[in-house]
Amino acid sequence: MTDFAATRALFDLPDGIAYLDGNSLGPLARAVPDRVARTMTREWGGDLIGAWNSAGWMDWPERLGDRIAPLIGAAPGTVTLGDTLSIKVHQALAAALSLTDRRVILSDTGNFPTDLYMAQGLVRTLDAGHALRVVAPEEVESHLSDDIAVLLLTEVDYRTGRRHDMARLGDRARRNGIITVWDLAHSAGALPVDVTACGTDFAVGCTYKYLNSGPGGPAFLHVGPQVAERIDPALPGWLGHAAPFDFDPQYRPAAAAKRFRIGTPPVLQMAALDAALDVWDIASIHDVRARSVDLSRRLIDGVRAACPALVLASPGDDAARGSQVSFRHPQGYAIMQALIADGVIGDFRAPDILRFGITPLYIGTPEIDRCVETLARIMDRGLWDDPAFRRRQAVT
Amino acid sequence: MTDFAATRALFDLPDGIAYLDGNSLGPLARAVPDRVARTMTREWGGDLIGAWNSAGWMDWPERLGDRIAPLIGAAPGTVTLGDTLSIKVHQALAAALSLTDRRVILSDTGNFPTDLYMAQGLVRTLDAGHALRVVAPEEVESHLSDDIAVLLLTEVDYRTGRRHDMARLGDRARRNGIITVWDLAHSAGALPVDVTACGTDFAVGCTYKYLNSGPGGPAFLHVGPQVAERIDPALPGWLGHAAPFDFDPQYRPAAAAKRFRIGTPPVLQMAALDAALDVWDIASIHDVRARSVDLSRRLIDGVRAACPALVLASPGDDAARGSQVSFRHPQGYAIMQALIADGVIGDFRAPDILRFGITPLYIGTPEIDRCVETLARIMDRGLWDDPAFRRRQAVT
Repeated sequence: MTDFAATRALFDLPDGIAYLDGNSLGPLARAVPDRVARTMTREWGGDLIGAWNSAGWMDWPERLGDRIAPLIGAAPGTVTLGDTLSIKVHQALAAALSLTDRRVILSDTGNFPTDLYMAQGLVRTLDAGHALRVVAPEEVESHLSDDIAVLLLTEVDYRTGRRHDMARLGDRARRNGIITVWDLAHSAGALPVDVTACGTDFAVGCTYKYLNSGPGGPAFLHVGPQVAERIDPALPGWLGHAAPFDFDPQYRPAAAAKRFRIGTPPVLQMAALDAALDVWDIASIHDVRARSVDLSRRLIDGVRAACPALVLASPGDDAARGSQVSFRHPQGYAIMQALIADGVIGDFRAPDILRFGITPLYIGTPEIDRCVETLARIMDRGLWDDPAFRRRQAVT
Repeated sequence: MTDFAATRALFDLPDGIAYLDGNSLGPLARAVPDRVARTMTREWGGDLIGAWNSAGWMDWPERLGDRIAPLIGAAPGTVTLGDTLSIKVHQALAAALSLTDRRVILSDTGNFPTDLYMAQGLVRTLDAGHALRVVAPEEVESHLSDDIAVLLLTEVDYRTGRRHDMARLGDRARRNGIITVWDLAHSAGALPVDVTACGTDFAVGCTYKYLNSGPGGPAFLHVGPQVAERIDPALPGWLGHAAPFDFDPQYRPAAAAKRFRIGTPPVLQMAALDAALDVWDIASIHDVRARSVDLSRRLIDGVRAACPALVLASPGDDAARGSQVSFRHPQGYAIMQALIADGVIGDFRAPDILRFGITPLYIGTPEIDRCVETLARIMDRGLWDDPAFRRRQAVT
């Protein structure tokens, strides 16, 4: 059983704060500053260009990919790191489309905008009759017919926490000859994922949310062994070449996932990620999930009892919810500002969603209870509508 | 006049090393570790998600772009940062092609492989009859006819240091209705560039060479005001949206250069870059260029006199050379290994090129003279062919 007091001790959280926004930006792990400092002063400063080999920088995208792999059920060597999630979406989607003659990309209204934008951009660039079909989340399954080329979904909705059934949709997709691209931005490190069991072709995600790599940390891409070697990458960068230091004028893809490397990877951000991943040496993703469900239920029940004006926007069914809890209120923005002013950090998503990330690695029942109590006080007193409060907000 | 002792004092170079590889990876500026530490502990650690606003992270790509702009003759607001150079090449090239009905991309054999790979990838993705025409550098000008869509060149050749005449080629391109994309990887921070005077449509570059941002530092992209507002980006990321936090399902480009932002920018790497750029508060790029020419000539003359077996691979004409000096020798690899073992750090590029970066911000005549003397000793004694030396190399 994971010792959550021990995992909590690995993070450096400011005093007096209940941080329920780790689904947006994970906090600083205590090991990060020294690790990044070592990379700066000893590796870069001391070994200069030689550090690409002496410190092993060149292999970090795959070494760190292998550290993330168990959290998403991926085999070693199938995950690589770099760039941003938007770029990884583009790479995966372009690769998926290259594997089929079909032209329809199916996604849903719960997908994060950048995924939809990248799909729109690729459809326009290809200019070959592709179309992006965006349906409601609950209608995805019925649209998985044999005219669909690619299913492009984010498992957990960034606003509501609504969670797709990856296994079920993946199975139905496979039976219909549909390539799958899953965005695990709100899944990796939040709940167990099994890309292998789900027959996932491509999975992408970011590391700065539940993996705590810090602002702008690199994204990851997993490619299933069933498709990896058939891909001629649309963004063929020199570090995804089979022999980068041959400086061959003609691109030849590296083996498997490595072909999705593009340019020089962000070494300082990778050092931060590496240190942040140490918590998984003592934490089980299954324990994290169980504890997240308990804490989420405590928050839902507490708010239901104390703040009846807040409407649950997340699924009530634990299995259908990721690791966040969201509520709706017409004054959601002002309520969240009042909460933050009182040291309970969640965030707001237009038009009316208050969003709370549940991250058992470093939060527990005290933070949940404080959130409920503070919300109740704000709602009881209508603080978000208080002129004095609003004046205070205007100057901060 | 720039005080090069003062600029040298801003860098933390290991004792006993002559570092002539700043064209590959610039060294650590002394201000970097504290600056990155502050971003980690005070900003990320202390303000958590709030630091995107409180520390201004969200605006750093443009704020830092404006710090780089004067070095390349760009107007404020026309440079943005992020991603890798490969991605920036793709963005610029896709944007350039969207502005013309012509189908030929002209490049040269001196371009860095990743630029050619990204062009190959884009031609394949577009699948619309585009072609990449790669000619010898000296033949570029005569190929600038009115069937050329885009001129895609790296100003300074990464192997030989051969420098294109941007003004002359830019003028000829403009008169023939050709869009220009210049890769300034070996120019920015090395020599004055004037994208405005050259009528450059797009310029891209990296920051970890002559701008010393550290391994994997972000790339930059400049877009000329004459084309910026006409671009519908091929990689439309959410942070390049006109209103990212509206989470609009439909992409609308942000103003001018900001539309070339894609995903979440790498904050730790940007903090390192910000600190590294401080040297330009006391250095003039024109003085750096003049000193680089002096030091380059000293190296060329010294090697000619002391090592007649090394053949100059760089142009002898100062104006036709960037800020590096290269020599050819059939045993180039072994000679460079011997040099490095003696503390003179250059690098080797296949098949036979020894490459030395000239970076007056932190090297001067002592490093040049030591390089010449060490090369002479190695060549005189045939050290690269010495079994004892080779054994030492085998275990390091």
